[in-house]
Amino acid sequence: MPKKYVDLETLKYILYDIHKLENLLTRERFQEHDLESLNLFIDSVKEFSDRELYPFFKEMDETPAYHKDGTVIVHKQVETVMHQSGEMGIIAAAFNYEDGGLQIPFCALQAAVYIMEAANNHLPGYTGLTQGAAELIIEFGSKTLKDLYIPNMLAGIWGGTMCLTEPEAGSSLSDITTKATPTDNGYYKISGQKIFISGGDHQFAKNIVHLVLARIEGAPKGTKGISLFVVPKNRPKEDGNLEYNDVMTVADFQKMGQRGYCTTHLGFGDKDDCRGWLVGEEHKGLNQMFLMMNGARIAVGRGAAAIAMAAYRTSLQYANERAQGRKLTSDGKKNPLEKQSLIIEHPDVRRMLLLQKSIAEGSLSLVFLASKYHDIIHSTNSQEEKEKYNLLLEMIIPIVKTYPSEAGSESVNNGLQVLGGYGFCTDFSLQQYYRDIRISALYEGTTGIQSQDLLGRKVTMQNGKALKLLAAEIMQTIKLASKDDNLKDYAVVLGEKLQLSNKVLDYLMPFAAKGNYERYLADANLFMEYMSIVVLGWLWLEMAVDANTELNNSDSKYSKTFYESKIHTMKFYFKYEIPKTNSLAESLMSNEVVTIKKDKEFII
Amino acid sequence: MPKKYVDLETLKYILYDIHKLENLLTRERFQEHDLESLNLFIDSVKEFSDRELYPFFKEMDETPAYHKDGTVIVHKQVETVMHQSGEMGIIAAAFNYEDGGLQIPFCALQAAVYIMEAANNHLPGYTGLTQGAAELIIEFGSKTLKDLYIPNMLAGIWGGTMCLTEPEAGSSLSDITTKATPTDNGYYKISGQKIFISGGDHQFAKNIVHLVLARIEGAPKGTKGISLFVVPKNRPKEDGNLEYNDVMTVADFQKMGQRGYCTTHLGFGDKDDCRGWLVGEEHKGLNQMFLMMNGARIAVGRGAAAIAMAAYRTSLQYANERAQGRKLTSDGKKNPLEKQSLIIEHPDVRRMLLLQKSIAEGSLSLVFLASKYHDIIHSTNSQEEKEKYNLLLEMIIPIVKTYPSEAGSESVNNGLQVLGGYGFCTDFSLQQYYRDIRISALYEGTTGIQSQDLLGRKVTMQNGKALKLLAAEIMQTIKLASKDDNLKDYAVVLGEKLQLSNKVLDYLMPFAAKGNYERYLADANLFMEYMSIVVLGWLWLEMAVDANTELNNSDSKYSKTFYESKIHTMKFYFKYEIPKTNSLAESLMSNEVVTIKKDKEFII
Repeated sequence: MPKKYVDLETLKYILYDIHKLENLLTRERFQEHDLESLNLFIDSVKEFSDRELYPFFKEMDETPAYHKDGTVIVHKQVETVMHQSGEMGIIAAAFNYEDGGLQIPFCALQAAVYIMEAANNHLPGYTGLTQGAAELIIEFGSKTLKDLYIPNMLAGIWGGTMCLTEPEAGSSLSDITTKATPTDNGYYKISGQKIFISGGDHQFAKNIVHLVLARIEGAPKGTKGISLFVVPKNRPKEDGNLEYNDVMTVADFQKMGQRGYCTTHLGFGDKDDCRGWLVGEEHKGLNQMFLMMNGARIAVGRGAAAIAMAAYRTSLQYANERAQGRKLTSDGKKNPLEKQSLIIEHPDVRRMLLLQKSIAEGSLSLVFLASKYHDIIHSTNSQEEKEKYNLLLEMIIPIVKTYPSEAGSESVNNGLQVLGGYGFCTDFSLQQYYRDIRISALYEGTTGIQSQDLLGRKVTMQNGKALKLLAAEIMQTIKLASKDDNLKDYAVVLGEKLQLSNKVLDYLMPFAAKGNYERYLADANLFMEYMSIVVLGWLWLEMAVDANTELNNSDSKYSKTFYESKIHTMKFYFKYEIPKTNSLAESLMSNEVVTIKKDKEFII
Repeated sequence: MPKKYVDLETLKYILYDIHKLENLLTRERFQEHDLESLNLFIDSVKEFSDRELYPFFKEMDETPAYHKDGTVIVHKQVETVMHQSGEMGIIAAAFNYEDGGLQIPFCALQAAVYIMEAANNHLPGYTGLTQGAAELIIEFGSKTLKDLYIPNMLAGIWGGTMCLTEPEAGSSLSDITTKATPTDNGYYKISGQKIFISGGDHQFAKNIVHLVLARIEGAPKGTKGISLFVVPKNRPKEDGNLEYNDVMTVADFQKMGQRGYCTTHLGFGDKDDCRGWLVGEEHKGLNQMFLMMNGARIAVGRGAAAIAMAAYRTSLQYANERAQGRKLTSDGKKNPLEKQSLIIEHPDVRRMLLLQKSIAEGSLSLVFLASKYHDIIHSTNSQEEKEKYNLLLEMIIPIVKTYPSEAGSESVNNGLQVLGGYGFCTDFSLQQYYRDIRISALYEGTTGIQSQDLLGRKVTMQNGKALKLLAAEIMQTIKLASKDDNLKDYAVVLGEKLQLSNKVLDYLMPFAAKGNYERYLADANLFMEYMSIVVLGWLWLEMAVDANTELNNSDSKYSKTFYESKIHTMKFYFKYEIPKTNSLAESLMSNEVVTIKKDKEFII
C-alpha cells in the first residue's frame, strides 16, 4: 500500500501560494481565521483521513453496500466518518456562524474534503450530500425547518440527500413527475419514485433528510412547475421523537466503482403517508436546486481530481520501486549484463507520469480557482465584484466539473498502465481508482450536459461577458509570463490558443444567430475539451510564473527541485496537451456535418 | 440483454467484399474450401456463441475463477466450450491437414473467434492459447512431441499455455531465470516461477501443456540464451496414463476484468521432478516464441475489436430505445409539452455512437487486413510475395495489437457514457466491457512495448522498406478514391497525412542516426497513435470506395442504407479522428524534451 495518497506540499502550495488563501482572510467574513488555524484544520483532516478513511479504501470496494430488508447495509466506517466529520466541524465548516457554521473559507474546506476523497472516495459523499441538503434548507427554508433539521445534520447525526432523478427524468429534469399534494396542515403529501439517490439510506442513519424535487398538483409542465421539499425518512414529532414518514428504500444500484457509497431507489408515499415541507417558494425548486448545484459540480470535479492525485502518487511510487528493462545503448541495443533500470527511467513511463502529474495537480488548481471565486462572491460587499466573480464562476463551473472527470479518468488510465499487468490486478489499487473515477463524468450532469451548458448558456451569457472576463484573467498571466525570457514562448502559445478560441466561436455563432441551435451545439463536447485545455494551460503557466520567481528567491518556502518540477510539468503540458487544441479547432470549424440526424438513419 | 452483440452483416461485408476472402480461396492451400462452406462455418460459430458463450457472459464476471487447493476453479462453460470448440474444429481450423488441421484460411478462423469473443471474451482464450501452444509444437517440435500432444490439444481435451513472464521478467524477457538442467534421459529438469499465465490451470483440464521459456544451465545471458520447452502439467507415460509432472499452481491473480478467464502463478519443479522437453534448437526459444507472437498479437487486437463491437451494439440498442430530452427549437428552448426524443436523436449521442462504430468496424477491418497478410504468407509459392507480405505484416502487427486495444477502450468508454448513470451499473453490460477491454493494452507487450517495436524495429527494417510497402498500399486506395468526386477530398487529406508522417520521420531519424535512440524513441507512443489513425483512415476510405461503387450497382448485396452508413462513418472518421494527426505531429516534432531524465528528478 502506498504511503502517500496525496501530495500535501503541492496542495498547500497551490492553495496558499498560487490562489493566495491569505488574501481571502482579509475579508470580514473570514476575519476570525488565520493561515495558521486553517493549516491546522487541513493537517487534522489529513491525520483523520490517514486513520479513518484510507485504511478502509480497498475493503469498502470489496464489501459493497447492499440492499437488505428495506434498508441498505454499508461499511461501518460510514458511521464513524459521519460522526467524526460532524464533531470536527467538517460538515458545518463553510456555513455562517448564525446557522451553526464556522465561516471557514470554502477553499479551505475543499482542501480538506479533497484529502478525504484522495484517501477514500467512498466516504466523503455521505457528509458532502448532507452538507448540500443543509445548504438548501439554510438558504431557502423557514426558521422552523432550520431549527428542526440543521443541528442534527451539521453534527453528522442525520444524513441528507438530493432527490432529482426519476426513471424517466435524468438529464431531462423537466420531466419530473413526483407529485406533491397540498394539505391543510402546512405540509404536502408526496408520492413518486426517485432513482440514483446517493447515500439515500443506510443502517446507521437515525434519519435521512431528503431534498426532493416534485410537482405541486396543477403546476405548469416543464422546469417552471417544479418545487423543492424537505422529505425526511422519519418525521420529527412534537415530542422530539421520530415517526416513519413512508419513504421506502425500494432497491439499490450495484455499480462498477465507488461501491462503498450506496446508490438507492426510493419510493415516496407508497402508503399515502409521506409528508413533505415546501422549501422556499412554489415552482422555484429547480432554480433553488441549481444554486446548490454549483457546489455539487465543484464537488464532483474535486472528487475526480482527488482520485487522479491518489492514482498518480500510487503509480509514481511503483515507478520508483519497480526495476524492469534497460536503457538503450548508443547502438540501439540493451546490455543484459547491466542491472535493470527502475521503470521511472524510461521516457514512456515518464510521459505517463508527467501526464498524470499535469492533470492531477492542474485539476487541483482548477478546483481551488472555482472555490476562490465562490469565496469572493460570498464574502464581498461590492456588487460589482460579486457580479464579476459570479460570471467567472458560472463560466468555470462546467469546466471544473468536466475536466477533472474526463482528463482525470485518462490520467488514472495512464497510472494503471504504468503498473503493467499488475495494474489490472485487484491486489493493486490502480484498477479501483480506474473504476471509481468513471462515475465522475456521469454525476450531476454528464459531460454532454456540461458541454451544452458551457457553449449554450455560459459562453452566450450577457453577450459573452463571462467569457471576456475569463479571457482577461488569462491575459493577465500571459502578460506576466511574457516578461520573462524563460516563459515568454509559452505565453505566446497560450495567447494564440485564446485567439483561436475566438475564431472557433466566430465560426459557430452564426448558427445560433440563425436559430440553428442544434448545429451550434452539435460539437459542444469538443469546445469543452478545447476550453478546458486552454484553462489548464493558463493555470500551469500561472504556476510556472510563480515557481520561476521563487527560484530566484533565496528564502523561498519549498526546494529548488519542487519549483523546477512545476515549471517542468508546465512544459510537458505545453508540449503534449496544448497542441490538441489545433485538431479540436479543425474539427469544430469543419463544414462536414455528420452528427445531426437528417432524413435517414445511418447509425446502424 | 441486447439481442445482437455483433453485426454479422458488417463482419461478412468486410471479410468478403473488402478483404475479398474469395481471392484467397484460389490458392492451392485453400482449394478444398469455398465461400459457401466458410460462410456456413462462420454461421455455425455464431449459433454456437449464441448458445454456449453469450448467455454466460455476465455470470462469468460475477463468479470469477479462483484458486483453491492447488488448482483453479473456473465456470463450467470452460469445459463445454473447450470440448465443443475441439469437436467443431475451431482449434484445429487453420493447421495443415497433415497435422490434423482443416487448412481453413486464417481470416475465416479470425472471423469465427471474433464472434466468440464478442459474445463472451472470458472463454475463447482457453482454446486460443491451446491453439497457440499447439502451433509452436507443430512448427518446431519433434514428431514424438507432436504425436504425444497435438491430437488431444486440437480436440480441446488438453489445454495449452504460453509461459513467458516471471516476477522479474515482464516487458524485459531477457531477464528470464527459469532453469532447465539437461539429463541423460532426453528431457530437462525445469525449475522456476511463471506469473500471469492465462488459462494456466483449472479443474476441468485433464492435462495442460505449457510452452515454457527457460534458460539451459550455462546459457549466455540475455535473449540469446533462452530456450523453449514443452512442460506438461501431467506427463504421458508409455502406457498412455498420465503422471504428475511437478507443475504447481501456486496462486491466481484476481483481476478487474475478464474475471472468468483465469490467470495463474505456476511453480515448476518444486519437488525437483518437473520434466521439460526441448522444442526445436537450444537458445532459439525467444525467436520461436516470437514467430507465434504475431498470431498472439493479432488475437489481442481481435479480442479488443470484438469487445468494442459488442459494446457498440449494446449502446446503439439502448440509444434506440431510451427516450430522454428534447430537440432544441429555433429559439434555443425545449418544449416540455412535446414527447421526449429517443437519445439517438441527440447530436452528442450520435457523435459517441459514430465514434464507436468507426473504431469497432475499423478495427475489425484492421484485424482482417493482418489476417489476410498472414494467409498470403502461408499460402504463397512466390518468395517475392512472401517477402512483401511478411514485411507488411511485421509493420501492421504492433498496430493491430494496439489500435483496437487503445481506441477500443476509448470506444467502450463512450458506449458507457451513452447509457448515462445506467452505464455505471452492473445491471448493464457496458461497465463489464469497459473493465474487460482494459487488459488488451497490457497483454502480449504493452502499448509502450508495441510502440517501441513499431518505431524502433519495424519502421527501420530493411531501410524503411516495410513502411514504403505500406505507404504504397495506402496510395492505391488514395488513387482509387481520387477518381470519384464524392471521395476525392478525403483522398487528398489522407495523402497529406501520409506525407506528414514522412516529415515526422525526417525529424526523428537523425536522432537514431546519431545513436541517440532514447530521444528517437521517446515519443514512440505518439507515433503509434499517428500511424494508427492514418491506417484506419485508409481502411475507412477503402470501405467508402467500395460502398460508393456498390451504391451505383443495381444488384448490390446490401441495402443502400448499409453502404451509405459506411460512407457516413468514413466522413465521421475524417472529421473527428484524422485531424488528431496534426497535434500529434506537432508534439512529435517539438524540440522541447521533457520525458528524458537528466541529472535531476523533476517527477516528484
